[in-house]
Formats: sequence, C-alpha cells, structure tokens
Amino acid sequence: MTEHETASAPPALTVWGIPGLPGVAPGDDLPRLIADAARRAGVEPGDILAVTSKIVSKAEGRVVAAADREQAIADETVRVVATREHPGGAATTRIVENRLGLVMAAAGVDASNTAAGTVLLLPVDPDESARRIRRAVEACVGAPVGVIITDTAGRAWREGQTDIAIGASGVHLLDDLRGGHDANGMLLAVTAPAVGDEIAAAADLVKGKARGMPVAVVRGLAAHLDPAAPGGRSLIRPAAEDLFRLGHREARAEGRAEGRAEGRAEGRAEGRAEGRAEGVEEGYAAGYADGFAEGLAEAGDAGGAS
Amino acid sequence: MTEHETASAPPALTVWGIPGLPGVAPGDDLPRLIADAARRAGVEPGDILAVTSKIVSKAEGRVVAAADREQAIADETVRVVATREHPGGAATTRIVENRLGLVMAAAGVDASNTAAGTVLLLPVDPDESARRIRRAVEACVGAPVGVIITDTAGRAWREGQTDIAIGASGVHLLDDLRGGHDANGMLLAVTAPAVGDEIAAAADLVKGKARGMPVAVVRGLAAHLDPAAPGGRSLIRPAAEDLFRLGHREARAEGRAEGRAEGRAEGRAEGRAEGRAEGVEEGYAAGYADGFAEGLAEAGDAGGAS
Repeated sequence: MTEHETASAPPALTVWGIPGLPGVAPGDDLPRLIADAARRAGVEPGDILAVTSKIVSKAEGRVVAAADREQAIADETVRVVATREHPGGAATTRIVENRLGLVMAAAGVDASNTAAGTVLLLPVDPDESARRIRRAVEACVGAPVGVIITDTAGRAWREGQTDIAIGASGVHLLDDLRGGHDANGMLLAVTAPAVGDEIAAAADLVKGKARGMPVAVVRGLAAHLDPAAPGGRSLIRPAAEDLFRLGHREARAEGRAEGRAEGRAEGRAEGRAEGRAEGVEEGYAAGYADGFAEGLAEAGDAGGAS
Repeated sequence: MTEHETASAPPALTVWGIPGLPGVAPGDDLPRLIADAARRAGVEPGDILAVTSKIVSKAEGRVVAAADREQAIADETVRVVATREHPGGAATTRIVENRLGLVMAAAGVDASNTAAGTVLLLPVDPDESARRIRRAVEACVGAPVGVIITDTAGRAWREGQTDIAIGASGVHLLDDLRGGHDANGMLLAVTAPAVGDEIAAAADLVKGKARGMPVAVVRGLAAHLDPAAPGGRSLIRPAAEDLFRLGHREARAEGRAEGRAEGRAEGRAEGRAEGRAEGVEEGYAAGYADGFAEGLAEAGDAGGAS
C-alpha cells in the first residue's frame, strides 16, 4: 500500500501491459499463449484483457503481401465512405465501412508493426477470437474474465487516433443508461457510455504503439462483466441512425449529380416552352412572309393563266 | 502489494475518483477545492487530474434557465453540422460546432446532473480553467501535475459516448509519433494517439455518469507531462482536413441545390434550342398558311381594284 491508498479510496481502475508475450506467428495457439501469460501476470476474476487485434490477426494468419494491399483493402470494403487525394502524390486516404461494420481508414488493413513486405487484415471474427481467448484464460485462472479485441481508429472532427473495441466476449461494451437517472434524479435520456471503447483507450495508454506490448489487463470493472454480453456490433451505430454515412464531399457530389439531373429536366421543360414560343413567333413571321409571297405569285400565275 | 504485483510488472496506469468533493456552486473557488481534495487523495508529482467540465461550469456560473436552452445552444453554435428530427415529437438532434471548435450534440449544453430547471454551458475557456486548477494543485502538492478538462461526446458511426479532453494544462493531448518508428523499425506514418481523449475515457470509467465523482486521478503517464503543452485545440482537426464537415443529408442537400441550379441553367439552354427549332417549324407552317391566304387575298383585292 502506498501512502495515498491509506488516505483515499482504493484505486478504482488499474491497467498494465502483460510482459513476456513472445512474438506471434501464423498458426500459434494464441488463446493458450495469452492464458499462460495472464496466469503469470496474476490475472484475477473480474479482470478484462484488452488484446490488440494485430496479434490476433498474426496468429490467425491474416497476413497478405504488401503488394496486394490495394486488393486486400478492396476485398475488406463493403462501402466507401470518404476518400481524399493528398497533394504531392502521398497515399490516398480511404475511409470505408468494412465487412465488420467498422468505419476505418484503409478498411483496417494495417502496415505498421508487421513483418517487412506484409500487411495484416483484421481478424475474421473478432468476437469469436475474443471468445476463444476468454475460454482459455478462464480455464487457466479458473474464474470469469472479459476479453476485448482492440484496434486503432481515427475519428471524425478530432485529431489523432484512439483504440476502440472491435470484438468482445464476456463484457458489455455499451453501458446503456438510457432510461436511468442521474445523481439529481433527472432522466439520463441519451446517455450510453461506450465503456468498451473507453477500456480499449485506457489499455492503449499502457500498451502504446511502439512498445510491443499487445495485451493489457484492466482491473476494477468487474461490474461490466456478463457471460451473455453482445459483441463488437453493439458499438456500431445502425445505418438509419448514422448522420455521417458519407464524407461531405461525397454526399455533396451525390446530391449535385441528383440535383443536376432534376434541374436539367426542369430547365429543359421550361426552356422548351420558352424556346417554342419564341420559335413560333419567329417561324410565323418567316413563314408568313414566304407564304404571302407565294400566295401573291400563285395568284399572279393564276391571273396570267386565266 | 497484491500477489499479482510481485509476479508481474507493476501497474502501469492507476485511475481513481477523488472522493469528498463537495457540491459546487457558482463563485466557489474550484481550483482551491480540487487542490485540497487532491492533497487528501495523495496526488503525487506526474499525476494527471481529469476534471469533468460540469463542475467547472458550475463554479464559473455557466448556468442558464432551462427555458433558455434553445437560445443558449444557438449562442454557443458557430456552425450547424447535422440535424435530425425524430419521429413522435422527440427533441431534434442538433450536431453543431461550438465556439470551442468542438463538434457536439446541442453544442455541449448539458441538462443532466444539473439543478432542476437549469442547463449548463461549457466553460468559457477550458484551457484557462485547467491552468488555474493546475496552478492551485501544484502549489498545494509542490510538484508538476497535468490537468485535463473532460466532457462527454457522441461519435460518428459508433454507438454511445466517450469522454474527451476539451481543455488541458501541462499535459500533451496528442502523442504525435508521425515520423517515428514502430518495433520493427517501420515508419509510423500516420500514427498520433489522442492520449488526451484516452485519458479522459479512462477517467470516465471510474467517474461514471451517475456517481457524482467529478474528478479522477490518473497515475502512470508522467511521460506526457509538459508545462508548455498546447491545450484542447490540439485535438481539433483543422477544417481543411475534416472529411465530415457536414452530415450526409446536409451535404447532399447543399449539393442538390447547387446541382439543381446548374442543371436548370444547362437544361434551359438545351430546351430553348430544341423548343425554338420545333417552334420555328410549327410557326413557319402556320405563318406560311396565313401568309399564303393573305397573299392570295391581297392579289385578288389588287386584281379587283385594277
């Protein structure tokens, strides 16, 4: 016990990286490796393990040659959300929705901290990966734990990236307080803390990007554990409620194309009516002059012939 | 020391809520109150305090009658980003950019955990609020600390809310690794962890929404401390780099209006040319017939008169 702990409430949340996790290769039994490391790290009932998706992908052999990166991104993409070319020939930013429903740059295909010449795809099914790790850890430590699979994602409006929960087992990712009450008894109408993302963020603070510490233990949140909790999809906003389905340029371009087609049809109808009125007037005058001359001539011919 | 700490690396990150912070009222010396509570809670050099913006707003008297909420939101709004009416007459969702540059629902004007009949505006200058708290805490504990002012925000694409850093003093919010290298020596081209938001998220896990624990201590991140670190703006994406300046409906509507005007002008010109050609043909035939008849008549009149 340090001094502050005698003077205050005990630490409510403790997060630390698990040391000694060896490099992971395709085919490794990652659940087993993590369970052993977790036991050595003293994982206890109620702890949550935050596992970087990267080592899950590595163990699951989700490795692709860097030369096939573009194809891999296309294959992982369900829907393009926004793209932006960068001046000077730098790589194009492509924000897409991937097959997991996640909106991410490059569909989550990752080139950092991978073997040279390779890129990593996200795990096939992060919830299933989490379930397998959880089962192994629980068998090893003999107690319920939660497992979250994390990945790094950019955000709209804000600089930098945070880690988010892309899969989970045994832990609620969304703490739905909607319908509950605050400390003053007021209805917490729209409050639903995304605790899964907050746990992923807390874990990232100790894992770090350059430190090679892919699993963190998060202690103090046992209240969020539930063997029946839903997985990563619980943090994905349904399309109908998503106000940012497309980048503003893309949405604007779509609207412009639609508006242009509509406007063209309207304008054409208007212009046609106007042009017709003008043309009739113009044509009438020309026709009248020609007709009149012809009429005169016709009459002359008739008169001459009679 | 618990058992796990002997068997593993020491906890890298510890987060706990500061108990015993009394209810805060307008005019209270919040820096002083927090400093006293921090000292009692054993705050040490290198600790970061995560302070909920709500108590800062309360102390700064940023209270408005609930009846004036709409006006308050309008006053705090710099730019409307997206709105959505809800069926059944529920309140309209308004995502706006506020005067702090933050994109938030209702401009960050908050009705939860406030006195009945009132709403709270965000602090006037959260960086300055953080500075004042930091100065008071450092004077009290005699050592450098960091202070982050946090608020709760929704996100694009993802369910629920997380806490983010809206102001700071003495701590870097963005850990800019761009240009650095990963564990394999690969360039971390675009990586810049938003540690400020991750700290705010970690703190929210212990503060909770309904628990009335507005300040948390975050220990273990002294590496991010820097008296010269910039404030909350460092996590706000510049407009030119923001791919989601508008909701997709709003951007689409703008594009549609533009496209319609363009299309209408184009269509009108096309339609006019087409209509004119048709009209000339039609008018010519009518004019010719009339002219011919008139010509005949004219010739007849002339013949009769001669």
